[in-house]
Amino acid sequence: DGATVDRGRKARCGFGEVIYGEGKPAELIVRVAEKLLELSPSVLVTRLAAEVFAEIQVPHWQMHYSPQARTLRIARTAEALAVVEESSSPLRPIAVVTAGSTDAAVAEEVAETLTWMRVPFRVLTDIGVAGPQRLLASLPALEGCAAAVVVAGMEGALPSVVAGHVPYPVIAVPTSVGYGASLGGITALLSMLTSCASNVSVVNIDAGFKGGYVAGLIACGQQVPPQSDGE
Amino acid sequence: DGATVDRGRKARCGFGEVIYGEGKPAELIVRVAEKLLELSPSVLVTRLAAEVFAEIQVPHWQMHYSPQARTLRIARTAEALAVVEESSSPLRPIAVVTAGSTDAAVAEEVAETLTWMRVPFRVLTDIGVAGPQRLLASLPALEGCAAAVVVAGMEGALPSVVAGHVPYPVIAVPTSVGYGASLGGITALLSMLTSCASNVSVVNIDAGFKGGYVAGLIACGQQVPPQSDGE
Amino acid sequence: DGATVDRGRKARCGFGEVIYGEGKPAELIVRVAEKLLELSPSVLVTRLAAEVFAEIQVPHWQMHYSPQARTLRIARTAEALAVVEESSSPLRPIAVVTAGSTDAAVAEEVAETLTWMRVPFRVLTDIGVAGPQRLLASLPALEGCAAAVVVAGMEGALPSVVAGHVPYPVIAVPTSVGYGASLGGITALLSMLTSCASNVSVVNIDAGFKGGYVAGLIACGQQVPPQSDGE
Amino acid sequence: DGATVDRGRKARCGFGEVIYGEGKPAELIVRVAEKLLELSPSVLVTRLAAEVFAEIQVPHWQMHYSPQARTLRIARTAEALAVVEESSSPLRPIAVVTAGSTDAAVAEEVAETLTWMRVPFRVLTDIGVAGPQRLLASLPALEGCAAAVVVAGMEGALPSVVAGHVPYPVIAVPTSVGYGASLGGITALLSMLTSCASNVSVVNIDAGFKGGYVAGLIACGQQVPPQSDGE
Amino acid sequence: DGATVDRGRKARCGFGEVIYGEGKPAELIVRVAEKLLELSPSVLVTRLAAEVFAEIQVPHWQMHYSPQARTLRIARTAEALAVVEESSSPLRPIAVVTAGSTDAAVAEEVAETLTWMRVPFRVLTDIGVAGPQRLLASLPALEGCAAAVVVAGMEGALPSVVAGHVPYPVIAVPTSVGYGASLGGITALLSMLTSCASNVSVVNIDAGFKGGYVAGLIACGQQVPPQSDGE
Amino acid sequence: DGATVDRGRKARCGFGEVIYGEGKPAELIVRVAEKLLELSPSVLVTRLAAEVFAEIQVPHWQMHYSPQARTLRIARTAEALAVVEESSSPLRPIAVVTAGSTDAAVAEEVAETLTWMRVPFRVLTDIGVAGPQRLLASLPALEGCAAAVVVAGMEGALPSVVAGHVPYPVIAVPTSVGYGASLGGITALLSMLTSCASNVSVVNIDAGFKGGYVAGLIACGQQVPPQSDGE
Amino acid sequence: DGATVDRGRKARCGFGEVIYGEGKPAELIVRVAEKLLELSPSVLVTRLAAEVFAEIQVPHWQMHYSPQARTLRIARTAEALAVVEESSSPLRPIAVVTAGSTDAAVAEEVAETLTWMRVPFRVLTDIGVAGPQRLLASLPALEGCAAAVVVAGMEGALPSVVAGHVPYPVIAVPTSVGYGASLGGITALLSMLTSCASNVSVVNIDAGFKGGYVAGLIACGQQVPPQSDGE
Amino acid sequence: DGATVDRGRKARCGFGEVIYGEGKPAELIVRVAEKLLELSPSVLVTRLAAEVFAEIQVPHWQMHYSPQARTLRIARTAEALAVVEESSSPLRPIAVVTAGSTDAAVAEEVAETLTWMRVPFRVLTDIGVAGPQRLLASLPALEGCAAAVVVAGMEGALPSVVAGHVPYPVIAVPTSVGYGASLGGITALLSMLTSCASNVSVVNIDAGFKGGYVAGLIACGQQVPPQSDGE
Ligand SMILES: Nc1ncnc2c1ncn2[C@@H]1O[C@H](COP(=O)(O)O)[C@@H](O)[C@H]1O
Ligand SMILES: Nc1ncnc2c1ncn2[C@@H]1O[C@H](COP(=O)(O)O)[C@@H](O)[C@H]1O
Ligand SMILES: Nc1ncnc2c1ncn2[C@@H]1O[C@H](COP(=O)(O)O)[C@@H](O)[C@H]1O
Ligand SMILES: Nc1ncnc2c1ncn2[C@@H]1O[C@H](COP(=O)(O)O)[C@@H](O)[C@H]1O
Ligand SMILES: [Mg+2]
Ligand SMILES: [Mg+2]
Ligand SMILES: [Mg+2]
Ligand SMILES: [Mg+2]
Ligand SMILES: [Mg+2]
Ligand SMILES: [Mg+2]
Ligand SMILES: [Mg+2]
Ligand SMILES: [Mg+2]
Repeated sequence: DGATVDRGRKARCGFGEVIYGEGKPAELIVRVAEKLLELSPSVLVTRLAAEVFAEIQVPHWQMHYSPQARTLRIARTAEALAVVEESSSPLRPIAVVTAGSTDAAVAEEVAETLTWMRVPFRVLTDIGVAGPQRLLASLPALEGCAAAVVVAGMEGALPSVVAGHVPYPVIAVPTSVGYGASLGGITALLSMLTSCASNVSVVNIDAGFKGGYVAGLIACGQQVPPQSDGE
Repeated sequence: DGATVDRGRKARCGFGEVIYGEGKPAELIVRVAEKLLELSPSVLVTRLAAEVFAEIQVPHWQMHYSPQARTLRIARTAEALAVVEESSSPLRPIAVVTAGSTDAAVAEEVAETLTWMRVPFRVLTDIGVAGPQRLLASLPALEGCAAAVVVAGMEGALPSVVAGHVPYPVIAVPTSVGYGASLGGITALLSMLTSCASNVSVVNIDAGFKGGYVAGLIACGQQVPPQSDGE
Repeated sequence: DGATVDRGRKARCGFGEVIYGEGKPAELIVRVAEKLLELSPSVLVTRLAAEVFAEIQVPHWQMHYSPQARTLRIARTAEALAVVEESSSPLRPIAVVTAGSTDAAVAEEVAETLTWMRVPFRVLTDIGVAGPQRLLASLPALEGCAAAVVVAGMEGALPSVVAGHVPYPVIAVPTSVGYGASLGGITALLSMLTSCASNVSVVNIDAGFKGGYVAGLIACGQQVPPQSDGE
Repeated sequence: DGATVDRGRKARCGFGEVIYGEGKPAELIVRVAEKLLELSPSVLVTRLAAEVFAEIQVPHWQMHYSPQARTLRIARTAEALAVVEESSSPLRPIAVVTAGSTDAAVAEEVAETLTWMRVPFRVLTDIGVAGPQRLLASLPALEGCAAAVVVAGMEGALPSVVAGHVPYPVIAVPTSVGYGASLGGITALLSMLTSCASNVSVVNIDAGFKGGYVAGLIACGQQVPPQSDGE
Repeated sequence: DGATVDRGRKARCGFGEVIYGEGKPAELIVRVAEKLLELSPSVLVTRLAAEVFAEIQVPHWQMHYSPQARTLRIARTAEALAVVEESSSPLRPIAVVTAGSTDAAVAEEVAETLTWMRVPFRVLTDIGVAGPQRLLASLPALEGCAAAVVVAGMEGALPSVVAGHVPYPVIAVPTSVGYGASLGGITALLSMLTSCASNVSVVNIDAGFKGGYVAGLIACGQQVPPQSDGE
Repeated sequence: DGATVDRGRKARCGFGEVIYGEGKPAELIVRVAEKLLELSPSVLVTRLAAEVFAEIQVPHWQMHYSPQARTLRIARTAEALAVVEESSSPLRPIAVVTAGSTDAAVAEEVAETLTWMRVPFRVLTDIGVAGPQRLLASLPALEGCAAAVVVAGMEGALPSVVAGHVPYPVIAVPTSVGYGASLGGITALLSMLTSCASNVSVVNIDAGFKGGYVAGLIACGQQVPPQSDGE
Repeated sequence: DGATVDRGRKARCGFGEVIYGEGKPAELIVRVAEKLLELSPSVLVTRLAAEVFAEIQVPHWQMHYSPQARTLRIARTAEALAVVEESSSPLRPIAVVTAGSTDAAVAEEVAETLTWMRVPFRVLTDIGVAGPQRLLASLPALEGCAAAVVVAGMEGALPSVVAGHVPYPVIAVPTSVGYGASLGGITALLSMLTSCASNVSVVNIDAGFKGGYVAGLIACGQQVPPQSDGE
Repeated sequence: DGATVDRGRKARCGFGEVIYGEGKPAELIVRVAEKLLELSPSVLVTRLAAEVFAEIQVPHWQMHYSPQARTLRIARTAEALAVVEESSSPLRPIAVVTAGSTDAAVAEEVAETLTWMRVPFRVLTDIGVAGPQRLLASLPALEGCAAAVVVAGMEGALPSVVAGHVPYPVIAVPTSVGYGASLGGITALLSMLTSCASNVSVVNIDAGFKGGYVAGLIACGQQVPPQSDGE
């Protein structure tokens, strides 16, 4: 009937399958999400157009849709949708950093993903390299994190510069912000891949979801989980 | 005099500067390594040609050169060069996985980097997707790791498949193994970036060093470090 | 008058010319299809927009239009349009496999093409590599086929993995599903071309028609045809 | 010890694993081939440099090395290495066609692969489109085949033209023959992928092995195999 | 005032400047065309959108607008706009050939350009290589021409095949017809540039104007012009 | 609150931050511009859509919006918005040159940037290389300038040709004017980067702002500034 | 035996097949050339390495090998190898123009091709656009030609500029001269394809043979040939 | 005789023609340099291989060859070859900055070019963004310059960061240092073109000559030249 839900994903990978919303009809999303809600407290849908979201109405669901990130989080209770405060979590936070204010939509997808994973985070907006004192002013906020997700378009230089200041992994998310030689984000992507900083790995263009997910796993890994450590 | 050593790297980032050996004369490498050895117990040089290594002779140095990985590790004592056993380390190991036997050189660079970082690792060789039962047989060895570094050329499919089996980050390292439409590793790189698995991030083509470094940082982060957690 | 119908195609190649619908006005399609119907029991039009189909009205035609596949099949009788059951055909079936549910439109074009060729097929939906147990569960359905058409976007890894399980040709169809480094399907295409599995050949991006056609010819070839074997 | 042989490949896929020779030392090739010879009557090594072949000496092996194709076939008996005559085979032959005489090395790799598979073939050399009467003269030789493997560099037009004359699949193999805008075979590859002929599928640049293997499987499939058809 | 008309173009190059219509307002086109009409009997505008043409109204102008080719020809008399018959011209005709019926718009731009140049032409539509007997049937019509303009999309193979049959230059015009690996016409362009036929030169994608212009100059050059031959 | 204004830009770089308008809501632009107006007499916004501009209404602002250039200049007094006459400036002018009349929008962005910087300029329109006498006629106007900004699409040849006539830097601005092999301006960009003239440097495609800014800095640098020269 | 000579080429196309020397052994070249010499007074081999030429020794042949162009012309008499003087030919000459002195090898291939075709030519060396007065000084030599072949690397601007001065076709030959963004000639190729001059068509990178051949056909076409005009 | 010297270059552009050494024989270089030495006190040759330099011996020449930069400067007196001290020049210096020590060869080409132009400069080596305090320590040395030439490979981030600190133009020179996704310098090039800093323009990959030349012209322009300002 149009989809084969990966029911074992949560057991194997720690988190359930995430629904890729692009090109899927509302009816299919509802059907798949119902199945996933049986296995997890909340479900994430990414790249979901506002028009498709408008067609989704399920009485017993709590939902949080972010028009900027184009993400939907679904749960059975409102609590399962709330943002996680740093103070109330055993996990170190993730730093979510953007180069320009136009990168905000992708950073929002990072934040929605981390919220779905129950991982706390700190947001640092618009501190790109053309105004270098802005990053210096942000250094205290970068301390004590488990990882940073750095979101940047155009020349994508910010992850390299942030990475030169921190002792943890930087997940670089290139964005399609820019024009001409930006090539829809390819330039930022290539630039981040060739970073002269050692602690930078990269995900797909505009892939706030993936950047957030990898960073969230790093944060989760630092809390030694009794159940999965039994080998 | 040809180089400005980044003396603060260890304090800021946890590990000292690594020397990019490509195109540097032996004399410059010796000079920079001497300065770095004042700050760290061992020094790593990557992409170092065998001919240049042959010119490096410093009486008070212990050295380990890997011709396959083209890496050099330098220390003042032989102990600082030894591989770290999983049993004698407080850290979870890193899984180092290759798709084909031709990817071995890049995997060796991963291993050399982890050894330099004092992180234990497990090696799983030649378990690419065309013989799928090989990965299934390796699943037990993938349990309990902090992260996996998956090295693959050609279509670069292995990271996606490994990632579907594990609850931790997978660092994908594309290699230039292949011909024609492999485009010197670009195909594997693009393939890994567009992985349908959520927990995959990517580093540069043939960048065993970077894959190992990011994975090593993840392993190190799981041992809550008393000194750097003071904020 | 705007078109030179290839009247000998059926004699030379076994099946008549297929009309490429993109950019052609309804009037031209009707004119060409009439000529082709003189030579074959049914005619296939591909990449036909719904608006152009809406303008096509020919009283003595039976038609089947698939909005998802954007294909039109035309015949003089309804029987010539029916799907071919595996049980009622002397031919082995084709396996039509998709990686994600978003690849369904292209798989539908495969199915419509096979139906037009009178070849039976089995559909396996949404069994991509991020949930690897789904393919294992599908292995019985892959047995006894003449060939498989594997449709996948993003990193395009599924054809390699399917190919590692079957003793017949796999025709890989890359799709434009994905974003950023997917490059509109180029990544999946390159990935499939560099597959480490030996039994994979590839057709154009989103070319469900071509994937189905090649697979259909393989199925037809297995039934030794008395008439064309006279040399 | 450097390699994990895929021992189940023959059972799953009909033919054993083929050794990708590029970058592998002679010692490793010998070791892997020994294991594979336990499972199959003969073993194929592709992309093997002449210098590496020169180091391979195993007393109880029969070997056939093609310097042009850079392939090695290994067997325990000389019979297992002989070319298969069309008259002595239950299978239809494969047509192996080249556009120019410079494409001969890739065609030779096709032929070596088919010989290893025990499939008969016919060779048609240097009948590219700039001299169009040459293909017309070859049409009789194209009749009655199971498939054609068409090898072409430069603009890669020959597969489209051959495909317009035959009722079976054409496997197009682009070659790196050409200069400038040939882009090392990319142009021929793209050209073949966008062929206006319906019955063309494509493999990697210079991938004579893959072209031959897919064609060989098609030929083998036409002889209904009693053992594997039991479902 | 927005434009510097190249008043000497006709004297230097034989024909006046042609107005590139894309992105130009109607008012500017009228102004430039008025100046050019002082120097030449008729003026050509290319890539002119129907909406912009609708705004152009000049009482003393005769105009011929082709919606398919998006060209406009302007003259002071209707005679100057008429198509040139082969029989009434001292020049050999140009063959205008298309591969598929979808290439018609670009061929129409060729025809409009030749009409503006007062050069006769013959049109051969939809004779692409997948139906090879169509070209053979057209060979008589290709005889006695000064040059051929061959318009093709997808794999762009037709110019090579036509060129193998004629003793004069073939100007190849790649079109953006196709999808996926067609890359908006880049594949056809590269394919034509690497043609194995010697007598093929190439112009930009969809550049019917340029293909027609170069061919027209070749036709004009064959009539030894008394005035410009005075050196 | 969505943006971190770079308050030190004017002190460090001589001119305040410029707002990149693409994708920013009117409300955010107003907020940032207010902060910048505290530091500079006028503020520049680039790549601002007319619809967003229509939403910007601040009573105490003087504004100049250019629909062609899609730029907005904001000041507290009308004087601060006026164009600078060459005769009333201590600075040498900048030559702003276009190849075709379709390049005018980008040239207008150059002019708006120079006006914001208070630098005089001379405009030379539509003097591209296909009508070479037009540049020769313009040579006197190119004398005595501090630099030239040369704007060209298609093959981007004009900067090389202008540069061969002048003793000062030429800033080349490629535009996305053209079609097919123009690749949205990539061809002009590459062409300008490989110019055989020595005095050409290049900015991004359609980056009139950047071309104007660099040229403006060169003009400003020629007037020895008493304040910043104190080292 | 390795080659299928196109014996009808001379009848169909006016000139016999030309041997593409790259990758062919000397023995094969001799064999093919012998067959072609039966049909034509002289034979042309292109892209022939000096080492392969050194192996070619046929007593009854006259040969002219150009090490710079890497071409070989073979004839039975020395007369058939001589350069054709403009004064002794009924044909208009071809202008062979280079941008820089490094383009000389490709221009030499043009000249060798024209000599083989018995077409006179004029050479204009090193008159690129950075020194624009050099082209102006060459204008008289460009008068009265049938066509120009313009050879240029780097930004490839010269064909556009030459084309703006002449009333006949310009065949542009991009060369691989340059570095970095020259991309091995791709930049010059794209630049020439997007020329704003109307009378420019393009051949492959470094394809002096093709540029010369097309220009030679244009020259030959201007002499109304009694024999081939009989339709 | 192989070259057409641009004798008017010095008068038109302020400096004489520079010889592009790549692919030119020693004899041609000597001949052209002799002609240029009649017009200027010194001559610059770029991209000159050491082997070719070794063949150049002219008794009355003073020469300075840099093996690292592969440049040769030729003069009649030793004085004309000396480096220009900042203290003895009326011009502001140029800052020549490198990101890593491997970029030194290109920086040396910048320095040689500036010396040839008689412009003083300051060199800042190996201050790339991964060790960010190094740039901060260099800020005083960046003060008071006319322009900076910033040389960087890999991700090419340094020009953006330097540009954020200075009030003058930054000429960015991408280098081919790096591997994999560096694409031979293309990534650094694209990154620099899309810099979010406003004052960055870019030259070709490894084009130290061009970076130095443009910067040198900017320095020269700041000294109001009495002779050329006469309009
Ligand atoms: N924004 C996203 N980017 C990349 N992969 C995603 C995204 N959202 C979901 N996915 C993955 O896409 C797969 C689901 O694809 P589908 O079957 O088409 O819904 C899951 O394995 C997810 O991990
Ligand atoms: N979806 C498709 N993809 C590729 N080729 C096609 C497709 N549909 C039809 N064709 C081929 O396109 C040709 C017809 O092109 P046209 O003359 O433009 O109708 C036929 O040879 C078909 O085999
Ligand atoms: N369709 C076309 N393709 C390429 N060049 C063209 C086209 N139409 C006109 N041109 C050229 O564009 C130039 C005019 O450009 P513009 O000044 O922008 O009108 C003239 O030199 C024409 O030769
Ligand atoms: N048209 C433009 N092209 C490139 N950079 C620009 C442009 N307009 C503004 N900028 C730069 O973009 C930065 C502001 O980015 P944002 O924070 O997104 O507003 C500033 O540093 C400007 O120098
Ligand atoms: Mg900002
Ligand atoms: Mg293996
Ligand atoms: Mg799914
Ligand atoms: Mg041949
Ligand atoms: Mg057709
Ligand atoms: Mg114009
Ligand atoms: Mg020169
Ligand atoms: Mg360094």
